[in-house]
Amino acid sequence: MSEHNLVDTAVAQARAAASFWAETSAQVRATLLRGLADALEAHKEPLIALADEETHLGTSRLTGEIARTAFQLRGFAEGLASGPAYARIVDAAVAGAPPVGRPQLTRVARPLGPVAMFSASNFPFAFSVLGGDTASALAAGCPVVVKAHSGHPRLSQAVFDLAREVVRSQGLPDGLLTLVDNASRGAGGYLVQHPDITAVAFTGSFQGGTALWKLANERSRPVPFFGELGSINPLVALPAALEDNSAELAKTLAASITMGCGQFCTSPGVIVLLDQPASERFIGQLCEALAPIQTHAMLTPGMRQGFEQASGHVAAHATTLLAPAEGAEGPAPRLYITEAATFIQDPALREEMFGPGALVVKARDLEQVNQVLNAIGGTLTTTLWGADQDTEANRALVRAAEAVSGRVLFSGVPTGVAVCAAQQHGGPWPSSTAPQTTSVGYAAIERFLRPVALQDAPAWRV
Amino acid sequence: MSEHNLVDTAVAQARAAASFWAETSAQVRATLLRGLADALEAHKEPLIALADEETHLGTSRLTGEIARTAFQLRGFAEGLASGPAYARIVDAAVAGAPPVGRPQLTRVARPLGPVAMFSASNFPFAFSVLGGDTASALAAGCPVVVKAHSGHPRLSQAVFDLAREVVRSQGLPDGLLTLVDNASRGAGGYLVQHPDITAVAFTGSFQGGTALWKLANERSRPVPFFGELGSINPLVALPAALEDNSAELAKTLAASITMGCGQFCTSPGVIVLLDQPASERFIGQLCEALAPIQTHAMLTPGMRQGFEQASGHVAAHATTLLAPAEGAEGPAPRLYITEAATFIQDPALREEMFGPGALVVKARDLEQVNQVLNAIGGTLTTTLWGADQDTEANRALVRAAEAVSGRVLFSGVPTGVAVCAAQQHGGPWPSSTAPQTTSVGYAAIERFLRPVALQDAPAWRV
Repeated sequence: MSEHNLVDTAVAQARAAASFWAETSAQVRATLLRGLADALEAHKEPLIALADEETHLGTSRLTGEIARTAFQLRGFAEGLASGPAYARIVDAAVAGAPPVGRPQLTRVARPLGPVAMFSASNFPFAFSVLGGDTASALAAGCPVVVKAHSGHPRLSQAVFDLAREVVRSQGLPDGLLTLVDNASRGAGGYLVQHPDITAVAFTGSFQGGTALWKLANERSRPVPFFGELGSINPLVALPAALEDNSAELAKTLAASITMGCGQFCTSPGVIVLLDQPASERFIGQLCEALAPIQTHAMLTPGMRQGFEQASGHVAAHATTLLAPAEGAEGPAPRLYITEAATFIQDPALREEMFGPGALVVKARDLEQVNQVLNAIGGTLTTTLWGADQDTEANRALVRAAEAVSGRVLFSGVPTGVAVCAAQQHGGPWPSSTAPQTTSVGYAAIERFLRPVALQDAPAWRV
Repeated sequence: MSEHNLVDTAVAQARAAASFWAETSAQVRATLLRGLADALEAHKEPLIALADEETHLGTSRLTGEIARTAFQLRGFAEGLASGPAYARIVDAAVAGAPPVGRPQLTRVARPLGPVAMFSASNFPFAFSVLGGDTASALAAGCPVVVKAHSGHPRLSQAVFDLAREVVRSQGLPDGLLTLVDNASRGAGGYLVQHPDITAVAFTGSFQGGTALWKLANERSRPVPFFGELGSINPLVALPAALEDNSAELAKTLAASITMGCGQFCTSPGVIVLLDQPASERFIGQLCEALAPIQTHAMLTPGMRQGFEQASGHVAAHATTLLAPAEGAEGPAPRLYITEAATFIQDPALREEMFGPGALVVKARDLEQVNQVLNAIGGTLTTTLWGADQDTEANRALVRAAEAVSGRVLFSGVPTGVAVCAAQQHGGPWPSSTAPQTTSVGYAAIERFLRPVALQDAPAWRV
């Protein structure tokens, strides 16, 4: 079969299952999600071994990731009965002329239909075949057509085979979850433009995501595109936070920068410091903490090449604190430094380095820190260390952080994204193409539902 | 000042007011909205006279519209204290390792910032300077830059002057509401691409809206674009509904088709009937009811020309039941008929006729009705007469209607959109560029808010 035929077949199966799935009870959907979680856990050992072979992410990280993936499948199952996305709003009829008088109206949420889901390279479980996008779309009542990532094709197929078994064992149609594997970029574009696809979920690179987003907008009938395209995650460490314990903080930050070889969408890529002695000491401690860290191999040779290019780019526009060295398997950590004024003027310094690197930005004062955040414009997270006191300056800083971020942290590091109802993973462009939605946490289900107002509807439909 | 300077000045004022307004209490915002409603009502007589002069919509309609506009300003004021858009979601910290262990997270909603609002021609009050977009954006905490519509420039200025007085009398900054008047299309595009504009609200033509939507997507940092671009609002009248009282229904439908000279976004443009004797009788009754109706002049000569073109287009592809005749001031109503198979195949028949015209589509059976709805693909409303019984066929019909519509009516006509919490005004493309949002009703506020998760935040910020 040609690639387009493969896509056509998968989408046709999804479409055939869409009405059935849209009408299923919360109970039926929850049972599927729990069955998928159970199957992942029952087969975790061979799956983790396969994932490690394909991604080099290590057994410990992958064990955590599979637990998280099962946890979120079950979390969506639990949320189905009472989730806010399913809340109906009922307005009784009011007699008389408008604007006070009105008919009876009930606002309900309906699933969009077949969703095209593009797997990420860096989360072979949690943002792949049975990851958060799939879990939330299935919970919403939408079949999912998965575009596997070329970085872990065998794992994708293995997880898909497991999922298909669960779907069949529960007497559900195959079309609920289909896989487009080994497909080219062209096939991805064809999938996004397929007339029976009603929404797209994407996690990946700025370049790839932007290209697909444009294709979705060029459809004769554009559909919602939920894309996470990149984020540089500034971390502002104010002197107040660096007075005590700064060596410990430097270690924590170094671990966050190099975690998973820096291949996290929430990896802290920009460290903003005030031009003060405490900051100088902290920079030294950060270099010390980073230098000895051995990273594992990157996900793909292409990503390694991309990191070398991106960090080389930064090196050409900033000062190198910690130079690229020969690592064992992965690239050695690297750290650069520049002045805030330069950072604000030079867009090259605001591009993502996807890998174990970070750029220190030295600001004159808090006002300039706010300008740095404003120049970044869109990021999944901003971390503020030392901004806990209720002062005018801190209020302005927090406002500046909120204006550009999906999540603002007042302690800790941005890597590690809790799966819960209050989570928000998605900020202004380019961190998300749909900044009012989240791709992690239980509000993710809202991406795949659309409100419909039913006017004077019979009881059997509302 | 050049047009671009006018836009720059307005946006700069809005930006200067944005932080202040974002931090105001619900009380302060509600007081402004109520003050604006009071001012509209206090000056309604001269405003209605001016509106009638510029739009020809008639005193009675305009009296209703100004009441609706004041009603919705007050409705958003009432909703501010307890609206669901302001609900915080709080997840307590959980000790232990992830995925169960997590930090404390609070999900809040923050205003986007300055909103560019493009007024509509056909609702000089309700979708103009102080219309639903402005009311919901101000309620959300966003300043509004209004692009006045060239169809009612003097009214726009008069309403704006009133609003400015209210803003000043409450000691609020001018930047909360600014007006870009007498501006060309180029200025509109410049406004949409202004780096300090954080969202766009648009109600108008498919052509104009699509052009602005594209410009918004071509920004270096695209922003949410909430556009309502056109809708043909199918009304399905099944034989069950036409057995009794069909003459009365024909009159109701004729009034809806010609209301406001057909210049409503919810005007029923496609009447879907089964090929049965009851339908033939109903078509006759509809022609009888439509023929004598005298319409008023259309909003602008350009819109009259557009209607003549669009209905001429339909006439060339369908059979004419009621031909264009010389009306008094406005165009005489017109009605066309075609077969469902033709309608499904020919996209020309699915284009909006903005004016007092409709197309009857005769379907073989209910399955073909579903195909007609599917071909329409995106519409603000679908009306289903005679689908109240709980049968498999009706369930399939309702599903088909929900799949393409923002609102599904089981009785009455789609013109007249209640302002309430359960309303949904916006369906799949092209009826909305953001089909998961509404531009009428209290959920409209959500368009201008963005969720932010605050992790381990101090009490003063959550």
